[in-house]
Amino acid sequence: MTLAQSPQDFRRKCRTAEHVTQTSGCCPGYIQANLVILPSHAAQDFKDLCMRNPVPCPLLGMTRVGDSGKIDNPVLLDDDDFDIRADFPRYSVYVDGLLESSPTDIRHLWTDDHVGFLLGCSFSFENALTEAGLPPRNQVAGTNVSMYITTKLLDSAGIFSDAPYVVSMRPYKAKDIEKVRQITREFRKCHGEPIDWGFGAVERLGIKDIDSPEFGDSTVIADDEVPVFWGCGVTAQTAAVRAAKRIRGPVIGHLPGHMIVLDVKDEDVVKL
Amino acid sequence: MTLAQSPQDFRRKCRTAEHVTQTSGCCPGYIQANLVILPSHAAQDFKDLCMRNPVPCPLLGMTRVGDSGKIDNPVLLDDDDFDIRADFPRYSVYVDGLLESSPTDIRHLWTDDHVGFLLGCSFSFENALTEAGLPPRNQVAGTNVSMYITTKLLDSAGIFSDAPYVVSMRPYKAKDIEKVRQITREFRKCHGEPIDWGFGAVERLGIKDIDSPEFGDSTVIADDEVPVFWGCGVTAQTAAVRAAKRIRGPVIGHLPGHMIVLDVKDEDVVKL
Repeated sequence: MTLAQSPQDFRRKCRTAEHVTQTSGCCPGYIQANLVILPSHAAQDFKDLCMRNPVPCPLLGMTRVGDSGKIDNPVLLDDDDFDIRADFPRYSVYVDGLLESSPTDIRHLWTDDHVGFLLGCSFSFENALTEAGLPPRNQVAGTNVSMYITTKLLDSAGIFSDAPYVVSMRPYKAKDIEKVRQITREFRKCHGEPIDWGFGAVERLGIKDIDSPEFGDSTVIADDEVPVFWGCGVTAQTAAVRAAKRIRGPVIGHLPGHMIVLDVKDEDVVKL
Repeated sequence: MTLAQSPQDFRRKCRTAEHVTQTSGCCPGYIQANLVILPSHAAQDFKDLCMRNPVPCPLLGMTRVGDSGKIDNPVLLDDDDFDIRADFPRYSVYVDGLLESSPTDIRHLWTDDHVGFLLGCSFSFENALTEAGLPPRNQVAGTNVSMYITTKLLDSAGIFSDAPYVVSMRPYKAKDIEKVRQITREFRKCHGEPIDWGFGAVERLGIKDIDSPEFGDSTVIADDEVPVFWGCGVTAQTAAVRAAKRIRGPVIGHLPGHMIVLDVKDEDVVKL
């Protein structure tokens, strides 16, 4: 049972491959993060990409070049054992833009030229929505949230051009949208408030079929509900993978849903 | 002659209505800024809009509520006489979303409930392009840069939803685009590098007729050139004006092209 334990204990279990599955519901109350690892020549451009597109790509912190044991932002308490190469349950390794493997650690791939980036994740605001009596459909149904590649492009940054904005969707009643916007707005480092909503947004975002998400599961939208769209953490990994031809060596991320748990509480992420 | 003088002297001339015309070329080497003034109830949403869309809306600094004499970022040297209500050559006053007047100061409209926002402007990177031997066509031709309302939407923030991303366009030869990207990239608080380029970008941005910009003048694109698009400072004012129905009282901005000159040198804006 991995629910009620400290993030530090949980990371140790990931590090030793004792926990290798999804992290939804793990260490409730603490924030989780997405991962992108790149060689140093791509690091400044990727950081620029995040700074220019902070809603889909909210940068929580990054390592120094080659130093897998520290993050430049206070998202970890004293944790001498922290290792960005092992503290995720599973990784995704992309070679030439294609998923090659999903190992439980990537120590064998990390070099002293690598930089790791941690990005905010919507789990934090999902908990807040549930506490406010507005649980996301994916949590109620026990499915993965629906994610779509849109025709909206990120603002280009260096080698990261032509990268699509990826959104997640949760259906809500029209009368609840203002409350949903208010609650999620505070989570500025975790995608924040919705970027758009309603069936008009489906068209504006260039989503061809709302029932066929590119990632995750399909979500039922009831007759009295409309789709609500947020920036999605998959955006950053998608941008990195699509730039594979301009990046030397593999692109490494986490396996979707297999996040790292940080030492920041949900209520404190609003201060980051 | 207003070219070679200190920003402080130049602001004094604006304050006394001695200078009431365009500011292109004024105080060369110093950055200029766009203005949006809103009542306090709209200020946090507008700040969120800027933080969520930093490329078209790069926030350089803001006043406290009701205090027209100070900016919260170090963009001014000691200047006890600074007054955001008078230091622009001309203002635009919008009532119910329509331009009502273009006065040379707005002391009579400012209340102790107002907040002023200063936003970065592309003049800074235009100077850098010229110095690198890549002068923007609008500077060479002595015209206003072409600006377009795109079908790309800003990421919504509170009362600012459905606001369009406005871009500026400067044509360049395809072989020069990487250099143009590199030079402007450093000006992160002044829109930074282009968001997209090439004739494909015209379609991606939903621009119907490249020869008919919504703001500014039409620009000739030579046979060996392609259009290059940047985030544009008009975006913020457009978003504020379009939200007029949700804002109590007038929306105030600067008259386009009539900017404030700050005490930050072009080469120092990269550190902001």
